Amino acid sequence: MRVLGVDPGLTRCGVGVVEGVPGRPCTLVAYHVIYTEPDEELPLRLLHLDTELARLVAEYRPESVAVERVFSQHNVRTVMGTAQASAVAVLAGARAGLPVQTYTPSEVKAAVTGSGQADKAQMMAMVTRLLRLDAPPRPADAADALALAICHIWRGGTRARLAAAASAVRQRVAAQRSAAKRQGGTG
Amino acid sequence: MRVLGVDPGLTRCGVGVVEGVPGRPCTLVAYHVIYTEPDEELPLRLLHLDTELARLVAEYRPESVAVERVFSQHNVRTVMGTAQASAVAVLAGARAGLPVQTYTPSEVKAAVTGSGQADKAQMMAMVTRLLRLDAPPRPADAADALALAICHIWRGGTRARLAAAASAVRQRVAAQRSAAKRQGGTG
Repeated sequence: MRVLGVDPGLTRCGVGVVEGVPGRPCTLVAYHVIYTEPDEELPLRLLHLDTELARLVAEYRPESVAVERVFSQHNVRTVMGTAQASAVAVLAGARAGLPVQTYTPSEVKAAVTGSGQADKAQMMAMVTRLLRLDAPPRPADAADALALAICHIWRGGTRARLAAAASAVRQRVAAQRSAAKRQGGTG
Repeated sequence: MRVLGVDPGLTRCGVGVVEGVPGRPCTLVAYHVIYTEPDEELPLRLLHLDTELARLVAEYRPESVAVERVFSQHNVRTVMGTAQASAVAVLAGARAGLPVQTYTPSEVKAAVTGSGQADKAQMMAMVTRLLRLDAPPRPADAADALALAICHIWRGGTRARLAAAASAVRQRVAAQRSAAKRQGGTG
């Protein structure tokens, strides 16, 4: 599974593309940071972000997109820009017909380090190790985007296994009911 | 000048199209409210909003787009959705190659009623009067979008007049300097 992760930001937007299957080491495909000028007007900044994200989606052809869910406790001024950048990222995935999933920072930290309270350095170290890189990806926005992609691959796997297990249970129950029905002649 | 105003919202997004020139009564072209289901997933909601806005821009061919600037003092949960909807609206205008301007609610109220503290009823009454409608536009989201479009037409006019006045002053100063230069032989 190839996943494009996005750490949304208006000034710096991290994008990381990772390939892998649940529970096994992932492989780095690429990472980028999209920059927009703070002096530039909002429409041009959002348009630049949209164009670049569409280009990266077309170039790397991911099967799904993972975007960091925006958090409300941040600085209010920053959070507005982040919310707008995240909308552009979610839309870029949806426009390309891809499934888009959002994750909170804690979910990503827990998936990658085992702890929802992991710090930046710990996250960077784990992303470097999990992708078997020689050096940590820079800048940090790119590392966060890669962590999102890893989180999506692994959690997607967990979800897929849970869904498969639930489906197996349902099938077993249905089979038992059918058997009971055949034996007793009632439903 | 034809302006498409957007009162951004994720659940209800008001769109109003108005034609006019600064300082004169405007003419209503159309208004709509785009709804998205709160139960629906975010990517589908943003995609629906994007598709509908692109359709309205293509249908009404405005010369510019006016979007309400998102305010931070609102409920934080609501404001995230509003910020994301506003990003989609700003982007829809930018993608169509149109100039996009944002206005705070106070700017819109001041432009339409003369007071930045006007209430909903006063705004609705003024929009109805300014567009010479028989009845107030419903729902309120549509009225707010129409007010944004009116604000943009009138303020755009003010800006254009100020720019023209400033340009005239600069030209006069330049002409005086040239005249002085010709008389005295120095700059």
